[in-house]
Amino acid sequence: MDVKDIDTPALVVDLDAMERNLAGMARFARERGLRLRPHAKMHKSAEIARLQIAAGAVGVCVQKTAEAETLAAGGVDDILVTNEVVAPLKLARLATLAQQLAGRGGRLGVAVDSAHGVAALAAAMAGVAASIDVYVEIDVGHGRCGAAPGEAALALARQVGAHAPLHLAGLQAYHGRAQHQRTPAERAASIAAAAQAAAHTRDLIEAAGFGPLCITGAGSGTFTLEAASGVWHELQVGSYLFMDADYAANEADPQAPVFEHALFVKAQVISRQADRAICDAGHKSHAIDTGLPRVAWPEGLAFANGGDEHGVLRAAQPGVRLPAIGDTVWLIPGHCDPTVNLHDELLGVRGGLHAGRVERRIRVDARGALT
Amino acid sequence: MDVKDIDTPALVVDLDAMERNLAGMARFARERGLRLRPHAKMHKSAEIARLQIAAGAVGVCVQKTAEAETLAAGGVDDILVTNEVVAPLKLARLATLAQQLAGRGGRLGVAVDSAHGVAALAAAMAGVAASIDVYVEIDVGHGRCGAAPGEAALALARQVGAHAPLHLAGLQAYHGRAQHQRTPAERAASIAAAAQAAAHTRDLIEAAGFGPLCITGAGSGTFTLEAASGVWHELQVGSYLFMDADYAANEADPQAPVFEHALFVKAQVISRQADRAICDAGHKSHAIDTGLPRVAWPEGLAFANGGDEHGVLRAAQPGVRLPAIGDTVWLIPGHCDPTVNLHDELLGVRGGLHAGRVERRIRVDARGALT
Repeated sequence: MDVKDIDTPALVVDLDAMERNLAGMARFARERGLRLRPHAKMHKSAEIARLQIAAGAVGVCVQKTAEAETLAAGGVDDILVTNEVVAPLKLARLATLAQQLAGRGGRLGVAVDSAHGVAALAAAMAGVAASIDVYVEIDVGHGRCGAAPGEAALALARQVGAHAPLHLAGLQAYHGRAQHQRTPAERAASIAAAAQAAAHTRDLIEAAGFGPLCITGAGSGTFTLEAASGVWHELQVGSYLFMDADYAANEADPQAPVFEHALFVKAQVISRQADRAICDAGHKSHAIDTGLPRVAWPEGLAFANGGDEHGVLRAAQPGVRLPAIGDTVWLIPGHCDPTVNLHDELLGVRGGLHAGRVERRIRVDARGALT
Repeated sequence: MDVKDIDTPALVVDLDAMERNLAGMARFARERGLRLRPHAKMHKSAEIARLQIAAGAVGVCVQKTAEAETLAAGGVDDILVTNEVVAPLKLARLATLAQQLAGRGGRLGVAVDSAHGVAALAAAMAGVAASIDVYVEIDVGHGRCGAAPGEAALALARQVGAHAPLHLAGLQAYHGRAQHQRTPAERAASIAAAAQAAAHTRDLIEAAGFGPLCITGAGSGTFTLEAASGVWHELQVGSYLFMDADYAANEADPQAPVFEHALFVKAQVISRQADRAICDAGHKSHAIDTGLPRVAWPEGLAFANGGDEHGVLRAAQPGVRLPAIGDTVWLIPGHCDPTVNLHDELLGVRGGLHAGRVERRIRVDARGALT
């Protein structure tokens, strides 16, 4: 199928751009001797996870038990749930999955940040013929989950160490807020503080006889900083593969490889009025939590919110001609992760958005995998 | 299954509240002699559409061709696409659907707002052994799609009238922005202006020998005004069935039946810090286009954005005790339509959220039906 024949709205991946992003991040991690564990919450696709692993990733991260199950069923063997899981039902599923993955030479990890969580995980793993990698999550500035760095984290590490099926693998240290700080100086200050907290906590826990610990974290907005710190061993970047309008709004770090937009919503103009064109993509097609999409093409258009199923396009400067009814519009979503989660499949295009062809359909296997 | 055993996050419908809402709107329309055609873009469920029709609705509205196909496959026979459709591929699908629905005694309608759109629709319907109801959409203040009221709409009506398989059924006159104006006075002013524009356009078209026209529109924020105007024949309300935090933020119209919140996200606390509890529902569980969810229970908590998969709960007043790890939290989504679209199913609960049981699972058939 030609790109021009893709029905709208549709979520389209420029495979050429995606593959350049894939290779660029793999090279970055390899050159610095760092483990790459991309975050699959972004793409939710077993096919893409396998591509990332083939390019050198050790495995992937997910946020949810159901995502881990779905990707494992799709052939991914090494998965880290970078989140707290406390429901006994979910922990029983994780225990089953840990056993499955171990049985085929893989491994499962999970984050903890409370004594309650460690006890519940230990109860679920009791009698299971496999171990699970446990990462003590510390709050390095994000202000969401995570134990306080230092003594609180050490106490959790000791508790993890007291249960044989729990393998104290390291620290989960992710500074989510830093990803979207706009200037390199702000991001550098945040990650420097995070590095200090993570290194101090690691030293404390290793001095107590545990470890060595793997410190895992980082995102597409700051990974050069975590990499340069010498503190992190593993990078959890996700968005680099597709990029989005929000990450593009960061002032670039001169040390960072350049990543291209690879994810687009193809839309069509369905109505024209004197001052505006209305297209068939609204926020059931693209997430708007970090802002509205940018119009990639035609140039010179500003996108205004038209509700669930419409986008309102106006000239961003005088002299720009509005597109006509039936014309194609290409949008760059504000935030790739929740945008992908709205779609059952990604249409992978080879040869560019304008003259290319659909090479393959990529299933969003874990779409809606919330539990 | 007991409610307490529902895994989280999950989208839960309080069936008792939903049924009271269902009956309340049906009674309102019946008592005023108005046709009720609820908007199924909200629930995307054939089962719920059938319930609405059993309660007296003439059929349903949808926004997308794919929604119409999905609901028709689920047994809904009378469907109006309240939106412009211009792609030849989609129009061919609508033509097929019009024939199918006519064959079982039903009907299909669609909105148009351009000469391009009418010509493309006529081309698709040429040779089809069925007619399609055409509603000329006029912009009555929403500022999105819609021809200008008056002469422009008359010109489109004449064009529709020139094609035998196109049946000029009426005017689509929906003032979306008025739904969310907070005071009754603002909403009354908006709908009074919309009524004048719609009546004037109707008179013009009927004087030219067409009609009688059905004027269709209204939403859950303003339907009492459209009903009282004497101009609208048909109400397209959607959100009344579930309600959401945004509609609840409107100052109530004393004439309106009271609708209850019937849609909730069940979430669980997975992390506790000194000043906050973190639950497992973020904006992959609920849409935030009209704002964050409200916490229905426990009382006294404020919800802050924790990203795709987390919500951060803090005490809204001094003295409120934060929930503990493992505790259940009930959220009222900001906007029901795009929230439902994130989920594959709704869990229908009988007997209340705290002690009830899951009576049935309601499939969100048209989830992700974007084209």
